[in-house]
Amino acid sequence: MDPAKLLDILGNENRRRIIQLLASRPCYVSEISGRLGVGPKAIISHLDLLEQAGIIECSVDEQRRKYFNIANNMRLEVLLSPYTYTVTLHDIHFNREKGGETPSKKETLDREESSTLLLKLSSRLRELKKRQEELTQMQQQLQAEYTEIMDQCLDSIEKVATNPIECELLFELLRNETTLASLCYNLRLHPSVINASLTALEKRGFIEYSIKNNQYYWKIRETGAENE
Amino acid sequence: MDPAKLLDILGNENRRRIIQLLASRPCYVSEISGRLGVGPKAIISHLDLLEQAGIIECSVDEQRRKYFNIANNMRLEVLLSPYTYTVTLHDIHFNREKGGETPSKKETLDREESSTLLLKLSSRLRELKKRQEELTQMQQQLQAEYTEIMDQCLDSIEKVATNPIECELLFELLRNETTLASLCYNLRLHPSVINASLTALEKRGFIEYSIKNNQYYWKIRETGAENE
Repeated sequence: MDPAKLLDILGNENRRRIIQLLASRPCYVSEISGRLGVGPKAIISHLDLLEQAGIIECSVDEQRRKYFNIANNMRLEVLLSPYTYTVTLHDIHFNREKGGETPSKKETLDREESSTLLLKLSSRLRELKKRQEELTQMQQQLQAEYTEIMDQCLDSIEKVATNPIECELLFELLRNETTLASLCYNLRLHPSVINASLTALEKRGFIEYSIKNNQYYWKIRETGAENE
Repeated sequence: MDPAKLLDILGNENRRRIIQLLASRPCYVSEISGRLGVGPKAIISHLDLLEQAGIIECSVDEQRRKYFNIANNMRLEVLLSPYTYTVTLHDIHFNREKGGETPSKKETLDREESSTLLLKLSSRLRELKKRQEELTQMQQQLQAEYTEIMDQCLDSIEKVATNPIECELLFELLRNETTLASLCYNLRLHPSVINASLTALEKRGFIEYSIKNNQYYWKIRETGAENE
């Protein structure tokens, strides 16, 4: 799914409430409507939209009533800082439909074995939650350091650049290695102007290029220190 | 900031485009309007909203023109799976205004030293990006495993529960330790019904409680295996 599409979907409070409800249990339309205090007509139109986007799916129970559940497993991440805005959406695959081993094993488990297994699995879930919190911590530290270093870089760039265009170029290249064409587009400057500055910066040892897919990609020169 | 508020803000495409532009460089209203092909009136109303939310801030340049930049450093994460919907927003603090050491050190750096520093910082940025990718990988694996284990748990629960209410209770407790009141609210069942089932499940060794802030919190019994 396009991350922008997901942001559009999550931009509506009632859709968020529907998703939250379905993540706690599969529900019928009447249940959702009653629980959220929103008319069934509006609920159905949200459900249609969520279903089309592949976020939910519907099934039919023994009494031929339709119920809905979350179909997807995904992680959306938005990083926002003075130097970054990135939106990433990961579809996470899991072995739900796999079957194979598990069902046959399942048949042979009696109630006692199932009990032990349940306690074991529950303890594994707790571990995973703890690990999740650790990863979140690490990610925050990383983002904080990134922003601090970018601040320091801006100070250095002001010192080493001989004109505003060099400033802009170094700043762009610091964030990503990039092509002449992208630089022209982002900075709205003529290729000849940018090329002259790139050449000057390369001569002074600040930047270098590599060729990928028949294109020149410019980046800040690697000093070799980062190659572990 | 309330994560719901941020989702409301990001639910609009033009606001996302403004944020993206400002994360690449501070801009004037006229620049934003020209770049995005959206009238200045609409841009200004989006900017007002973004400023009120604390996402952007404005400054005035030497020619007394207002320009806008990203004021915040934050990470929004949405996890969505058949068993989870969590939205977390982390405000990430960084030492931007700190000053102290850095400025005095900055004064003493000449152009040559600044050049070396810039290359060093750039190489650190590259490391951070690599690390970021690794963390993202880990987080995805974690989420996949979580969903798989929840699937297995559901199988076990079906085996060990003697009635649908026990099923529901075990499922709720698997996701979070929780109070009687929350269970009543989530399952829409009378306290006496839930209490009877909790007592039965406790007797059979599936669940246990702890007391926090004068409240009973029920959870799946810890077997001790998870305590490293």
